[in-house]
Amino acid sequence: MRILAIESSAKAASVAVCQDGALVGQYFQASGLTHSRTLLKMAADLLANLELKLADMDAVAVAKGPGSFTGVRIGVAAAKGLCWGGDKPVIGVSTLEAMAWHGLGREDVIVCPAMDARREQIYNARFRFEGGKLIRLTDDRAVALDELVLEAKKEKKPYFFVGDGAKLCYNRFLEENLPALLAPEPLLLQSAWGVAMASGGKEPEESLDLTPNYLRLSQAERERLEKTAHQ
Amino acid sequence: MRILAIESSAKAASVAVCQDGALVGQYFQASGLTHSRTLLKMAADLLANLELKLADMDAVAVAKGPGSFTGVRIGVAAAKGLCWGGDKPVIGVSTLEAMAWHGLGREDVIVCPAMDARREQIYNARFRFEGGKLIRLTDDRAVALDELVLEAKKEKKPYFFVGDGAKLCYNRFLEENLPALLAPEPLLLQSAWGVAMASGGKEPEESLDLTPNYLRLSQAERERLEKTAHQ
Repeated sequence: MRILAIESSAKAASVAVCQDGALVGQYFQASGLTHSRTLLKMAADLLANLELKLADMDAVAVAKGPGSFTGVRIGVAAAKGLCWGGDKPVIGVSTLEAMAWHGLGREDVIVCPAMDARREQIYNARFRFEGGKLIRLTDDRAVALDELVLEAKKEKKPYFFVGDGAKLCYNRFLEENLPALLAPEPLLLQSAWGVAMASGGKEPEESLDLTPNYLRLSQAERERLEKTAHQ
Repeated sequence: MRILAIESSAKAASVAVCQDGALVGQYFQASGLTHSRTLLKMAADLLANLELKLADMDAVAVAKGPGSFTGVRIGVAAAKGLCWGGDKPVIGVSTLEAMAWHGLGREDVIVCPAMDARREQIYNARFRFEGGKLIRLTDDRAVALDELVLEAKKEKKPYFFVGDGAKLCYNRFLEENLPALLAPEPLLLQSAWGVAMASGGKEPEESLDLTPNYLRLSQAERERLEKTAHQ
Protein backbone atom coordinates (compact mmCIF):
# COMPACT_ATOMS: atom_id res chain seq x y z
CA MET A 1 0.00 0.00 0.00
CA ARG A 2 1.58 3.27 -1.16
CA ILE A 3 0.22 6.46 0.36
CA LEU A 4 0.69 10.14 -0.42
CA ALA A 5 0.14 11.93 2.90
CA ILE A 6 -0.58 15.64 3.38
CA GLU A 7 -0.38 17.72 6.55
CA SER A 8 -1.10 21.45 6.81
CA SER A 9 -3.21 21.89 9.93
CA ALA A 10 -0.97 24.47 11.63
CA LYS A 11 2.18 26.50 10.86
CA ALA A 12 4.15 23.58 9.37
CA ALA A 13 3.31 21.91 6.08
CA SER A 14 4.52 18.54 4.89
CA VAL A 15 3.97 15.82 2.34
CA ALA A 16 5.22 12.24 2.51
CA VAL A 17 5.19 9.04 0.53
CA CYS A 18 5.00 5.90 2.65
CA GLN A 19 4.94 2.31 1.50
CA ASP A 20 3.75 -0.41 3.90
CA GLY A 21 4.86 1.59 6.94
CA ALA A 22 8.26 2.64 5.55
CA LEU A 23 8.99 6.32 4.91
CA VAL A 24 10.06 6.61 1.25
CA GLY A 25 10.29 10.40 1.32
CA GLN A 26 9.12 13.40 3.28
CA TYR A 27 9.23 17.12 2.50
CA PHE A 28 8.60 19.37 5.50
CA GLN A 29 8.70 23.09 6.03
CA ALA A 30 7.79 25.47 8.85
CA SER A 31 8.78 28.82 7.38
CA GLY A 32 5.45 30.55 7.94
CA LEU A 33 4.83 30.92 4.19
CA THR A 34 1.21 30.22 3.27
CA HIS A 35 0.33 26.58 2.61
CA SER A 36 -1.64 27.62 -0.46
CA ARG A 37 1.68 28.52 -2.07
CA THR A 38 3.96 25.80 -0.71
CA LEU A 39 1.94 22.60 -0.24
CA LEU A 40 1.07 21.36 -3.73
CA LYS A 41 4.50 22.39 -5.06
CA MET A 42 6.07 20.22 -2.35
CA ALA A 43 3.87 17.28 -3.36
CA ALA A 44 4.75 17.68 -7.05
CA ASP A 45 8.49 18.07 -6.34
CA LEU A 46 8.56 15.08 -3.97
CA LEU A 47 6.79 12.76 -6.43
CA ALA A 48 9.09 13.89 -9.27
CA ASN A 49 12.21 13.41 -7.13
CA LEU A 50 11.05 9.88 -6.24
CA GLU A 51 10.28 9.18 -9.92
CA LEU A 52 6.66 8.51 -8.96
CA LYS A 53 3.33 9.86 -10.14
CA LEU A 54 -0.01 10.37 -8.44
CA ALA A 55 -1.18 7.35 -10.46
CA ASP A 56 1.35 5.20 -8.52
CA MET A 57 -0.40 5.95 -5.21
CA ASP A 58 -3.07 3.69 -3.75
CA ALA A 59 -4.64 6.50 -1.73
CA VAL A 60 -4.12 10.04 -0.44
CA ALA A 61 -4.23 10.58 3.33
CA VAL A 62 -4.81 13.98 4.90
CA ALA A 63 -5.09 15.54 8.36
CA LYS A 64 -8.72 16.73 8.49
CA GLY A 65 -8.54 18.63 11.77
CA PRO A 66 -8.69 19.93 14.36
CA GLY A 67 -6.28 22.75 13.58
CA SER A 68 -6.10 26.17 12.00
CA PHE A 69 -9.29 26.73 9.96
CA THR A 70 -7.35 27.95 6.93
CA GLY A 71 -4.65 25.28 7.25
CA VAL A 72 -7.12 22.41 7.51
CA ARG A 73 -9.17 23.78 4.62
CA ILE A 74 -6.10 24.00 2.36
CA GLY A 75 -4.99 20.44 3.19
CA VAL A 76 -8.45 18.92 2.79
CA ALA A 77 -9.11 20.88 -0.41
CA ALA A 78 -5.74 19.82 -1.87
CA ALA A 79 -6.38 16.15 -1.01
CA LYS A 80 -9.92 16.26 -2.43
CA GLY A 81 -8.67 17.94 -5.60
CA LEU A 82 -5.86 15.42 -6.11
CA CYS A 83 -8.20 12.49 -5.44
CA TRP A 84 -11.02 13.77 -7.61
CA GLY A 85 -8.65 14.63 -10.46
CA GLY A 86 -6.58 11.46 -10.09
CA ASP A 87 -9.49 9.12 -9.29
CA LYS A 88 -7.98 8.03 -5.96
CA PRO A 89 -9.66 7.26 -2.65
CA VAL A 90 -8.94 9.58 0.27
CA ILE A 91 -8.37 8.80 3.93
CA GLY A 92 -9.05 11.65 6.35
CA VAL A 93 -7.43 11.27 9.76
CA SER A 94 -7.50 13.16 13.03
CA THR A 95 -4.67 15.70 13.18
CA LEU A 96 -4.15 14.75 16.82
CA GLU A 97 -3.96 11.02 16.13
CA ALA A 98 -1.38 11.72 13.38
CA MET A 99 0.67 13.78 15.86
CA ALA A 100 0.47 10.99 18.45
CA TRP A 101 2.54 8.76 16.15
CA HIS A 102 5.50 11.04 16.93
CA GLY A 103 5.64 9.20 20.26
CA LEU A 104 6.26 5.82 18.57
CA GLY A 105 8.71 3.78 20.62
CA ARG A 106 7.88 5.63 23.87
CA GLU A 107 5.87 3.07 25.80
CA ASP A 108 6.89 4.78 29.06
CA VAL A 109 4.83 7.95 28.55
CA ILE A 110 1.38 9.42 27.95
CA VAL A 111 1.59 10.84 24.42
CA CYS A 112 -0.04 14.25 24.44
CA PRO A 113 -0.45 16.15 21.15
CA ALA A 114 -1.16 19.80 21.89
CA MET A 115 -2.14 22.49 19.41
CA ASP A 116 -2.49 26.01 20.70
CA ALA A 117 -6.24 26.76 20.34
CA ARG A 118 -5.87 30.23 22.01
CA ARG A 119 -8.27 31.33 24.78
CA GLU A 120 -5.99 29.31 27.18
CA GLN A 121 -7.10 26.10 25.55
CA ILE A 122 -5.39 23.43 23.51
CA TYR A 123 -6.70 21.00 20.95
CA ASN A 124 -5.68 17.73 22.48
CA ALA A 125 -6.24 14.04 22.97
CA ARG A 126 -4.22 11.61 25.08
CA PHE A 127 -2.70 8.37 23.79
CA ARG A 128 -0.28 5.65 24.79
CA PHE A 129 1.70 3.00 22.91
CA GLU A 130 1.59 -0.68 23.77
CA GLY A 131 3.60 -3.17 21.73
CA GLY A 132 3.98 -0.55 18.97
CA LYS A 133 0.19 -0.10 18.80
CA LEU A 134 -1.33 3.34 19.38
CA ILE A 135 -4.10 3.36 21.99
CA ARG A 136 -6.43 6.34 22.29
CA LEU A 137 -7.25 7.43 25.86
CA THR A 138 -9.49 10.44 25.14
CA ASP A 139 -11.51 11.81 22.23
CA ASP A 140 -10.24 14.83 20.28
CA ARG A 141 -11.22 17.88 22.31
CA ALA A 142 -10.55 21.51 23.07
CA VAL A 143 -9.43 21.46 26.69
CA ALA A 144 -8.28 24.09 29.17
CA LEU A 145 -4.64 23.78 30.20
CA ASP A 146 -5.82 23.78 33.84
CA GLU A 147 -7.90 20.70 33.17
CA LEU A 148 -4.99 18.87 31.49
CA VAL A 149 -2.89 19.55 34.59
CA LEU A 150 -5.63 18.16 36.87
CA GLU A 151 -5.82 14.96 34.78
CA ALA A 152 -2.03 14.57 34.79
CA LYS A 153 -1.92 14.74 38.59
CA LYS A 154 -3.79 11.41 38.60
CA GLU A 155 -1.20 9.78 36.28
CA LYS A 156 2.17 8.26 37.10
CA LYS A 157 3.73 8.37 33.64
CA PRO A 158 5.38 11.49 32.24
CA TYR A 159 3.59 13.39 29.47
CA PHE A 160 5.31 13.50 26.07
CA PHE A 161 4.24 16.68 24.25
CA VAL A 162 3.99 17.14 20.47
CA GLY A 163 2.77 20.19 18.53
CA ASP A 164 2.81 23.97 18.50
CA GLY A 165 1.26 23.92 21.99
CA ALA A 166 3.89 21.47 23.28
CA LYS A 167 6.24 24.04 24.82
CA LEU A 168 3.31 25.84 26.47
CA CYS A 169 2.20 22.59 28.13
CA TYR A 170 5.76 21.48 28.94
CA ASN A 171 6.56 24.73 30.74
CA ARG A 172 3.30 24.63 32.70
CA PHE A 173 3.97 20.99 33.72
CA LEU A 174 7.45 21.92 34.98
CA GLU A 175 5.91 24.74 37.06
CA GLU A 176 3.52 22.19 38.55
CA ASN A 177 6.37 19.71 39.20
CA LEU A 178 4.77 17.22 36.83
CA PRO A 179 7.10 14.99 34.75
CA ALA A 180 7.15 16.13 31.12
CA LEU A 181 9.08 15.51 27.92
CA LEU A 182 9.22 17.41 24.63
CA ALA A 183 9.32 15.60 21.28
CA PRO A 184 12.69 16.20 19.56
CA GLU A 185 12.75 19.02 16.99
CA PRO A 186 12.03 16.93 13.82
CA LEU A 187 9.02 15.36 15.59
CA LEU A 188 7.87 18.48 17.43
CA LEU A 189 5.42 19.77 14.83
CA GLN A 190 2.87 17.84 12.78
CA SER A 191 4.16 15.65 9.97
CA ALA A 192 2.75 13.93 6.92
CA TRP A 193 4.51 10.76 8.12
CA GLY A 194 2.23 10.82 11.17
CA VAL A 195 -0.77 11.22 8.86
CA ALA A 196 0.31 8.18 6.83
CA MET A 197 0.75 6.14 10.03
CA ALA A 198 -2.67 7.22 11.35
CA SER A 199 -4.27 6.22 8.03
CA GLY A 200 -3.14 2.60 8.45
CA GLY A 201 -6.04 0.19 8.73
CA LYS A 202 -8.64 2.92 8.02
CA GLU A 203 -11.12 2.54 5.17
CA PRO A 204 -10.61 5.01 2.30
CA GLU A 205 -13.66 7.04 1.33
CA GLU A 206 -14.96 8.86 -1.72
CA SER A 207 -13.02 12.10 -1.92
CA LEU A 208 -16.11 14.31 -2.29
CA ASP A 209 -17.51 12.96 1.01
CA LEU A 210 -14.51 14.15 3.05
CA THR A 211 -15.25 17.04 5.42
CA PRO A 212 -12.96 18.84 7.87
CA ASN A 213 -13.43 18.46 11.61
CA TYR A 214 -12.87 21.82 13.26
CA LEU A 215 -14.05 20.78 16.77
CA ARG A 216 -15.43 24.26 17.31
CA LEU A 217 -17.10 26.93 15.23
CA SER A 218 -15.06 29.51 13.37
CA GLN A 219 -15.20 33.11 14.54
CA ALA A 220 -17.39 34.04 11.56
CA GLU A 221 -19.85 31.27 12.39
CA ARG A 222 -19.91 32.19 16.09
CA GLU A 223 -20.61 35.83 15.23
CA ARG A 224 -23.40 34.92 12.80
CA LEU A 225 -25.07 32.65 15.40
CA GLU A 226 -24.82 35.35 18.09
CA LYS A 227 -26.34 37.86 15.69
CA THR A 228 -29.21 35.52 14.79
CA ALA A 229 -29.87 34.77 18.48
CA HIS A 230 -30.29 38.48 19.19
CA GLN A 231 -32.75 39.09 16.38
CA MET B 1 23.04 31.39 12.21
CA ARG B 2 21.31 29.87 9.18
CA ILE B 3 22.68 26.57 7.91
CA LEU B 4 22.06 24.51 4.78
CA ALA B 5 22.76 20.92 5.81
CA ILE B 6 23.42 17.98 3.48
CA GLU B 7 23.38 14.27 4.24
CA SER B 8 24.01 11.46 1.74
CA SER B 9 26.31 9.01 3.49
CA ALA B 10 24.11 5.93 3.00
CA LYS B 11 20.88 4.96 1.21
CA ALA B 12 18.88 8.02 2.35
CA ALA B 13 19.56 11.55 1.16
CA SER B 14 18.36 14.74 2.79
CA VAL B 15 18.82 18.46 2.90
CA ALA B 16 17.67 20.83 5.62
CA VAL B 17 17.64 24.50 6.51
CA CYS B 18 18.05 25.22 10.21
CA GLN B 19 18.14 28.55 11.94
CA ASP B 20 19.55 28.82 15.48
CA GLY B 21 18.58 25.22 16.26
CA ALA B 22 15.06 25.38 14.76
CA LEU B 23 14.21 23.22 11.75
CA VAL B 24 12.91 25.58 9.05
CA GLY B 25 12.59 22.85 6.42
CA GLN B 26 13.79 19.37 5.59
CA TYR B 27 13.55 17.30 2.43
CA PHE B 28 14.30 13.60 2.89
CA GLN B 29 14.13 10.60 0.63
CA ALA B 30 15.17 6.95 0.88
CA SER B 31 14.00 5.61 -2.46
CA GLY B 32 17.31 4.07 -3.51
CA LEU B 33 17.70 6.49 -6.45
CA THR B 34 21.27 7.74 -6.81
CA HIS B 35 22.19 10.80 -4.75
CA SER B 36 23.94 12.29 -7.78
CA ARG B 37 20.50 12.70 -9.34
CA THR B 38 18.38 13.59 -6.31
CA LEU B 39 20.50 15.57 -3.84
CA LEU B 40 21.19 18.94 -5.47
CA LYS B 41 17.66 19.06 -6.92
CA MET B 42 16.30 18.64 -3.38
CA ALA B 43 18.52 21.48 -2.14
CA ALA B 44 17.42 23.79 -4.98
CA ASP B 45 13.71 22.92 -4.51
CA LEU B 46 13.85 23.35 -0.74
CA LEU B 47 15.53 26.76 -0.92
CA ALA B 48 13.04 27.93 -3.58
CA ASN B 49 10.08 26.66 -1.53
CA LEU B 50 11.38 28.55 1.51
CA GLU B 51 11.94 31.68 -0.62
CA LEU B 52 15.62 31.55 0.31
CA LYS B 53 18.84 31.52 -1.69
CA LEU B 54 22.26 30.05 -1.07
CA ALA B 55 23.37 33.64 -0.43
CA ASP B 56 21.02 33.71 2.62
CA MET B 57 22.95 30.89 4.31
CA ASP B 58 25.77 31.52 6.79
CA ALA B 59 27.39 28.14 6.10
CA VAL B 60 26.86 24.73 4.54
CA ALA B 61 27.19 21.68 6.81
CA VAL B 62 27.78 18.19 5.45
CA ALA B 63 28.25 14.65 6.77
CA LYS B 64 31.84 13.82 5.79
CA GLY B 65 31.80 10.14 6.76
CA PRO B 66 32.10 7.41 7.65
CA GLY B 67 29.59 5.90 5.27
CA SER B 68 29.21 4.60 1.74
CA PHE B 69 32.25 5.73 -0.28
CA THR B 70 30.10 6.96 -3.15
CA GLY B 71 27.49 8.55 -0.88
CA VAL B 72 30.04 10.46 1.19
CA ARG B 73 31.87 11.60 -1.94
CA ILE B 74 28.66 12.95 -3.49
CA GLY B 75 27.70 14.84 -0.32
CA VAL B 76 31.15 16.30 0.26
CA ALA B 77 31.57 17.20 -3.42
CA ALA B 78 28.15 18.88 -3.49
CA ALA B 79 28.93 20.88 -0.33
CA LYS B 80 32.37 21.91 -1.63
CA GLY B 81 30.89 22.94 -4.96
CA LEU B 82 28.11 25.00 -3.36
CA CYS B 83 30.56 26.65 -0.97
CA TRP B 84 33.21 27.37 -3.56
CA GLY B 85 30.65 28.71 -6.04
CA GLY B 86 28.68 30.64 -3.42
CA ASP B 87 31.68 31.80 -1.37
CA LYS B 88 30.41 30.17 1.83
CA PRO B 89 32.33 28.41 4.60
CA VAL B 90 31.72 24.68 5.06
CA ILE B 91 31.39 22.62 8.23
CA GLY B 92 32.17 18.92 7.86
CA VAL B 93 30.77 16.73 10.64
CA SER B 94 31.01 13.08 11.59
CA THR B 95 28.13 11.11 10.06
CA LEU B 96 27.85 9.18 13.34
CA GLU B 97 27.71 12.31 15.50
CA ALA B 98 24.96 13.68 13.23
CA MET B 99 23.01 10.43 13.65
CA ALA B 100 23.44 10.56 17.43
CA TRP B 101 21.30 13.71 17.52
CA HIS B 102 18.33 11.48 16.65
CA GLY B 103 18.43 10.40 20.29
CA LEU B 104 17.81 13.97 21.54
CA GLY B 105 15.53 13.90 24.57
CA ARG B 106 16.53 10.31 25.49
CA GLU B 107 18.69 10.82 28.54
CA ASP B 108 17.85 7.27 29.69
CA VAL B 109 19.81 5.45 26.97
CA ILE B 110 23.18 4.93 25.28
CA VAL B 111 22.70 6.43 21.80
CA CYS B 112 24.24 4.05 19.30
CA PRO B 113 24.39 5.03 15.62
CA ALA B 114 25.06 1.96 13.51
CA MET B 115 25.83 1.85 9.79
CA ASP B 116 26.17 -1.54 8.18
CA ALA B 117 29.88 -1.73 7.17
CA ARG B 118 29.52 -5.36 5.91
CA ARG B 119 32.06 -8.04 6.94
CA GLU B 120 29.99 -8.37 10.20
CA GLN B 121 31.08 -4.93 11.26
CA ILE B 122 29.29 -1.64 11.82
CA TYR B 123 30.50 1.93 11.66
CA ASN B 124 29.66 3.13 15.11
CA ALA B 125 30.34 5.40 18.04
CA ARG B 126 28.53 5.57 21.36
CA PHE B 127 27.00 8.73 22.85
CA ARG B 128 24.73 9.87 25.63
CA PHE B 129 22.70 13.01 26.32
CA GLU B 130 22.94 15.00 29.52
CA GLY B 131 20.85 18.15 29.97
CA GLY B 132 20.25 18.25 26.20
CA LYS B 133 24.03 18.14 25.52
CA LEU B 134 25.49 15.35 23.40
CA ILE B 135 28.42 13.57 25.05
CA ARG B 136 30.69 11.31 22.99
CA LEU B 137 31.69 8.05 24.68
CA THR B 138 33.82 6.48 21.91
CA ASP B 139 35.61 7.63 18.76
CA ASP B 140 34.14 6.85 15.33
CA ARG B 141 35.17 3.29 14.54
CA ALA B 142 34.45 0.17 12.54
CA VAL B 143 33.56 -2.39 15.21
CA ALA B 144 32.51 -6.04 15.14
CA LEU B 145 28.94 -6.64 16.32
CA ASP B 146 30.36 -9.19 18.81
CA GLU B 147 32.48 -6.48 20.39
CA LEU B 148 29.51 -4.09 20.68
CA VAL B 149 27.59 -6.82 22.51
CA LEU B 150 30.50 -7.38 24.94
CA GLU B 151 30.64 -3.63 25.70
CA ALA B 152 26.88 -3.47 26.22
CA LYS B 153 27.00 -6.28 28.80
CA LYS B 154 28.96 -3.88 31.04
CA GLU B 155 26.26 -1.15 30.72
CA LYS B 156 23.00 -0.75 32.60
CA LYS B 157 21.23 1.58 30.19
CA PRO B 158 19.39 0.32 27.09
CA TYR B 159 20.96 1.00 23.69
CA PHE B 160 19.02 3.27 21.31
CA PHE B 161 19.89 2.36 17.72
CA VAL B 162 19.90 4.71 14.72
CA GLY B 163 20.93 3.95 11.12
CA ASP B 164 20.78 1.30 8.42
CA GLY B 165 22.55 -1.08 10.81
CA ALA B 166 20.07 -0.35 13.62
CA LYS B 167 17.75 -3.31 13.04
CA LEU B 168 20.73 -5.68 12.74
CA CYS B 169 22.02 -4.53 16.14
CA TYR B 170 18.56 -4.41 17.71
CA ASN B 171 17.78 -8.00 16.73
CA ARG B 172 21.16 -9.22 17.98
CA PHE B 173 20.65 -7.39 21.31
CA LEU B 174 17.22 -9.02 21.76
CA GLU B 175 18.83 -12.45 21.14
CA GLU B 176 21.38 -11.63 23.84
CA ASN B 177 18.64 -10.43 26.23
CA LEU B 178 20.15 -6.95 26.22
CA PRO B 179 17.75 -3.98 26.49
CA ALA B 180 17.44 -2.21 23.13
CA LEU B 181 15.32 0.46 21.44
CA LEU B 182 14.93 1.43 17.79
CA ALA B 183 14.67 5.08 16.71
CA PRO B 184 11.18 5.78 15.30
CA GLU B 185 10.89 5.61 11.49
CA PRO B 186 11.46 9.36 10.69
CA LEU B 187 14.61 9.28 12.85
CA LEU B 188 15.81 5.81 11.89
CA LEU B 189 18.06 6.81 8.98
CA GLN B 190 20.52 9.68 8.74
CA SER B 191 19.11 13.19 8.38
CA ALA B 192 20.36 16.60 7.38
CA TRP B 193 18.77 17.94 10.57
CA GLY B 194 21.24 15.78 12.53
CA VAL B 195 24.07 17.23 10.44
CA ALA B 196 22.93 20.77 11.24
CA MET B 197 22.76 19.94 14.96
CA ALA B 198 26.23 18.34 14.91
CA SER B 199 27.64 21.44 13.19
CA GLY B 200 26.61 23.66 16.11
CA GLY B 201 29.59 25.24 17.85
CA LYS B 202 32.08 23.89 15.27
CA GLU B 203 34.38 26.25 13.36
CA PRO B 204 33.63 26.51 9.63
CA GLU B 205 36.57 25.85 7.32
CA GLU B 206 37.63 26.77 3.81
CA SER B 207 35.60 24.58 1.49
CA LEU B 208 38.59 23.37 -0.51
CA ASP B 209 40.23 22.01 2.68
CA LEU B 210 37.34 19.65 3.46
CA THR B 211 38.16 15.96 3.02
CA PRO B 212 35.98 12.89 3.61
CA ASN B 213 36.68 10.53 6.50
CA TYR B 214 36.14 6.96 5.30
CA LEU B 215 37.57 5.27 8.44
CA ARG B 216 38.90 2.48 6.27
CA LEU B 217 40.40 2.12 2.82
CA SER B 218 38.20 1.56 -0.19
CA GLN B 219 38.37 -1.81 -1.91
CA ALA B 220 40.37 -0.30 -4.80
CA GLU B 221 42.93 1.18 -2.38
CA ARG B 222 43.19 -2.08 -0.41
CA GLU B 223 43.80 -4.03 -3.61
CA ARG B 224 46.43 -1.58 -4.83
CA LEU B 225 48.29 -1.75 -1.48
CA GLU B 226 48.17 -5.54 -1.46
CA LYS B 227 49.53 -5.60 -5.01
CA THR B 228 52.36 -3.18 -4.12
CA ALA B 229 53.24 -5.22 -1.01
CA HIS B 230 53.70 -8.32 -3.14
CA GLN B 231 55.99 -6.66 -5.69
